[in-house]
Parts: sequence; structure tokens; C-alpha cells
Amino acid sequence: MAEKKMILDLDTGIDDALALAYAIGNPDVDLIGVIASYGNTTNQIAAQNTLNLLHLLGADDVPVFIGEGHSSTTNHFDVMPISQQIHGKNGIGDVELTTANHQVSNQSGVDFLIEVAHKYQDQLIMLPTGPLTNLAKALEIDPAVGQLIGQTTLMGGALSVPGNVTPFSEANIHQDPEAADVVFRHQENLTMVGLDVTLRTLLTKAHTAEWRELGTVAGQKYADIVDYYIDAYHDLGINENGAALHDPLAVAVSIDPSYMTTLPLNMKVTYDNQTGDYGRTIGDTARLLDPTTAQAAVLVDQKRFVPDFQKQMLAVLK
Amino acid sequence: MAEKKMILDLDTGIDDALALAYAIGNPDVDLIGVIASYGNTTNQIAAQNTLNLLHLLGADDVPVFIGEGHSSTTNHFDVMPISQQIHGKNGIGDVELTTANHQVSNQSGVDFLIEVAHKYQDQLIMLPTGPLTNLAKALEIDPAVGQLIGQTTLMGGALSVPGNVTPFSEANIHQDPEAADVVFRHQENLTMVGLDVTLRTLLTKAHTAEWRELGTVAGQKYADIVDYYIDAYHDLGINENGAALHDPLAVAVSIDPSYMTTLPLNMKVTYDNQTGDYGRTIGDTARLLDPTTAQAAVLVDQKRFVPDFQKQMLAVLK
Repeated sequence: MAEKKMILDLDTGIDDALALAYAIGNPDVDLIGVIASYGNTTNQIAAQNTLNLLHLLGADDVPVFIGEGHSSTTNHFDVMPISQQIHGKNGIGDVELTTANHQVSNQSGVDFLIEVAHKYQDQLIMLPTGPLTNLAKALEIDPAVGQLIGQTTLMGGALSVPGNVTPFSEANIHQDPEAADVVFRHQENLTMVGLDVTLRTLLTKAHTAEWRELGTVAGQKYADIVDYYIDAYHDLGINENGAALHDPLAVAVSIDPSYMTTLPLNMKVTYDNQTGDYGRTIGDTARLLDPTTAQAAVLVDQKRFVPDFQKQMLAVLK
Repeated sequence: MAEKKMILDLDTGIDDALALAYAIGNPDVDLIGVIASYGNTTNQIAAQNTLNLLHLLGADDVPVFIGEGHSSTTNHFDVMPISQQIHGKNGIGDVELTTANHQVSNQSGVDFLIEVAHKYQDQLIMLPTGPLTNLAKALEIDPAVGQLIGQTTLMGGALSVPGNVTPFSEANIHQDPEAADVVFRHQENLTMVGLDVTLRTLLTKAHTAEWRELGTVAGQKYADIVDYYIDAYHDLGINENGAALHDPLAVAVSIDPSYMTTLPLNMKVTYDNQTGDYGRTIGDTARLLDPTTAQAAVLVDQKRFVPDFQKQMLAVLK
């Protein structure tokens, strides 16, 4: 068993599916559970997608927990049309997977997170790739979580580049900026892996073709799912050169920080709709000279990461 | 004579006055001219302030040139009330200085810049501490300037922290974002020294008291000028702990880059009023994987810089 224990908090989602496969394939970390969040799809669909993907990857033993179903300031969530265009109506490129026998756990995702924060402490890596609603909720219920979790690495935000929902806001943060602000202020040892770096790591159909050539069901299904994503990136004019490895990059740098260069910076998340300053991740001037509890990934060694990612995917999918 | 030749492009301005003294006092650089810009005050007042300060510092031999008097998209400039509150109605804390005998040069600041760009090339450091109107104008007249100038280090912008005019925009960039965008796109070897770092370097009345204790006219006048600035920072609620060394920090890191940590990043300046995205310095996603021609200062060794700055000021003012 690896010393590091990881929780993925996924809104599964195509790049979430890649993060899942990458984490399962990494011998340096034990994936001890997945929390299903809303975002790319609903939390219920995310949970079922996660169960089915775990089954496809032969990892039925990883428990799945239901997270919060909507933001901390709403009581309802509808999937955005753009999310469906990027991830498909079913969240995984409209690819059909065999339904897993396993069911979601009876324990809530937030309760699971609090429990393992106390159990594993410094050993624990918390890795949210969607809105930060679950972690903020855990911090609200048990503020000690902020100091207990050894390392929190989140995919989300944009510091040195524009957002992808507005010029100022990245999609995960935009879903629940109030929750994100709680996390940025109270979660120690926080690393933000935002668009600054994820937009530099691109997957192409040359990669997925290699998965398909493995001749396995997992290889074929993952290729079908990700081709949908690459086509969407192309057709929507997001990027014609490939699709960004948002979520798996966060997993990779959480295990091997040498892939990234980080800027130590105390950040906040703003959510003032009147100034247009909604869902922005930005340095907190008031804490500029305080000891830093957070860092933002600002550069990535994409020339090393993308081939390494591909190598690990080929091992997982074979 | 030092090998490096420096042009200061100042809207003098209190922290511009500090940049001027710091540059004059530095043996590693020859100050070959000052261009007077609009911003903290008008270009005409900035020119006279610069002449008078050069006289005070015994540096009458440094020529002063008149730069553009307003932004590239307007035909008039009025000093903003907030600028007058920070810098005084006369731009230098309402302190009276002896009028210099020297006059401004007949050559325009932009023509001077183009001439020395060709003459000194790699030896030249261009250092704007106000709007980027003059440099953009030079690039428009002679695009070769973009490759000729060895190094351009500008005080302005905000990448990892909010702006000081709007949440997105820093004052120098806000004066003429269109010109700034031209500079960010076409000026090679560009270093942005923005609020990210300058807000970390604070001068206090303990420092100015030491200048006054020198018993020189220069020490007394500079202390009077900067005390106005420190009081304004305090009274306007900008910072109660001191006043930021914006402009002199840019001079310092242009000569000794080891004071700062930089992020290589191709940046742009946005100026869409409708989205609130006016005058923002931000990474250009379209050029994220291109070779970088610019860098942003993101960290500074303020514990080393501030005492070094003080030491140099005491030498210049004695």
C-alpha cells in the first residue's frame, strides 16, 4: 500500500474520467474514495459514471460517495448547455458503459471526507476537480479539516490567464465562488492547478488512437469518450490543437510536484456581480506579506508530462 | 562610464522622484535621459519637476525630453483627483524646489527614444514608470525599436493581485491600455514590475527621518516630499504600514534582477469597457505555448531590497 491516500472529488466528466484512470494507475498513491460532485454533470450522474468507469478499469473496490448536489448559495443545479456540449449529455461523451454492480456508499461524501481527514491527516491528498462545495461544507462542519488534510490540490481557477466562463472566472470556481473563497482562506497546504497550466497540456487523437490499438474494452471506451472531448474542443473553437488535460494534470502534480512551477501566494475568490469580479481567483493584497498557505501552479513541464501521462494511460487501459 | 544606458520615462510624481534619485546614485548604469510623461501630473509639470529634482541632486547634465501629453486614444489629459491626493497638486507633495536653470530639450521624447534605441541597442534599458504611450508611439513610428532596445522594464500592471484603479487595472496601464497592449505585443525583452511586487516594498517615516538627519537640502526636501506620500497612503487607507516603492523597485530590478522572481509569460492588455476588462494585464492564451518575449515579476526579496534602497538613497542625498 502506498503511503499517500487520495480522495478524488469529481464531477465526472471526461477529463475527470482521465483523472480517475491516472490515479488508479499510479503506484505512488492509494485512491481511497471518490466523491461525486455536480458540475460537468449532476452529482447523481457523476456518481454512476464513476462507478461504471471504476468497473471498466477493474477497480470496483474503490468506494464512491455522493457529494453536495448544488452550490452553497443555491438549492438547485442544472447542467449548463456548454458543459453538455463539451462532455456529452451523459457526461462521458455519450458513450455507453456497462453498468457497475456496485452502488454508492450510504455515507455522504462530506462525512467521508471529514472522517478520513482525521484518520490519515498528513498522508491524505484531497483532490477536487469540480466546484469546491464539498470541501467548504466539510470546513464549515469541522474547521479542523483545514489543518488536518496533508495536501489539497485542486483543478480550478485562473491567475495569470483569463477564465473560460468569463474573462475573470474559470468554470469550477464559477459554480460556487463563495465555497471556493472559504477553501482559499481556510484550507492549508493548498495548491491551485488552474488554466494557467492545464491549457498548456494537450491531448490529441494521436494519443487516443494508441489507446484504441490496445484492443481492450477499456482502451476503446476511453478513446471514444475522449475523442468526443477533442472534437468538442475543436468544434467549439476552444482549441484546435487538442483538448486540455485539466483534471489529470492536477492528479499528476499532486503526486509529482516536479512537473510544475508554483507561485506561493495567499489568494481569495471574489464574487461581486456588480463589478464583474465574480468567481475570480486572485492574490489577497491584505495578506501579501503574511506567511503563505497556498500556491498557484504557473508553469508546467508539458513536454515531460504529456508523454508520461500517455505512458501511464497505456498501462492502465491495457 | 557604465556599460548600461538607461532612459527613465517618468510622470514625476513622488515615487518617480525616488526612481530618479536611485538611478542617479547607481554606478552600474548611466542615466542618459529622462522623458516626461503625463500621469501622476501633466507632462509639462513632470518635466519641470524632473529638471528641479536633477538640479537638487547635482545632476543638471541629464537631459529631459517632453513626451506625449495624453493617451493614444484621447487628445487631452486631466490629472485625476486621486493622483493629486497621493502626489500633491504639484506632483511632488506640494514641496517647493529651486527652479533649475536647465530647460527641456528641443528634441521630443519619442524621437530621443528612437535615436538611442538605434545607437545603444543591447546596452539600452528603457524604464517607463507611467503610461506606455511614448514607447507605443516609438513602436508605431519605428517598429524596429521592438527588437532594438536591449531591455524594457516597466512599472505597471497587476497580474496576481487586483488593480488599484479597478479590481482589474493598475493606474499606469489604465491611463492608456491600447498603448500598453501594443508594448506587450511588440516590445521584446519586456519585464513587467507590477503591483504583484511593488506593494510588498514599503517605505516608512523611519526611513525618511534618516534622510532628514543628513542635514542636506536634498535630504530634507526628499524627506518632505516622501512624507506627503506616506501620509497620503495612510490617510486614503491604501496602506497604514508605509508607502509602496513602485517606481524605484522597477529601476532596482532592471539593474539587479536577483531582487525578483519572474514568471515568463506572453501577456496582453485588454480594453473592453463592456466586460469590465479595461486595462487588465493578463496572459495571452493564444500565445501560451509560444516562446516568451516577456516576464512578470511575481515575487521580490523585499527584506533585501528595502535596506539596499535606503543605503543608496542615503548616499545620493548626503
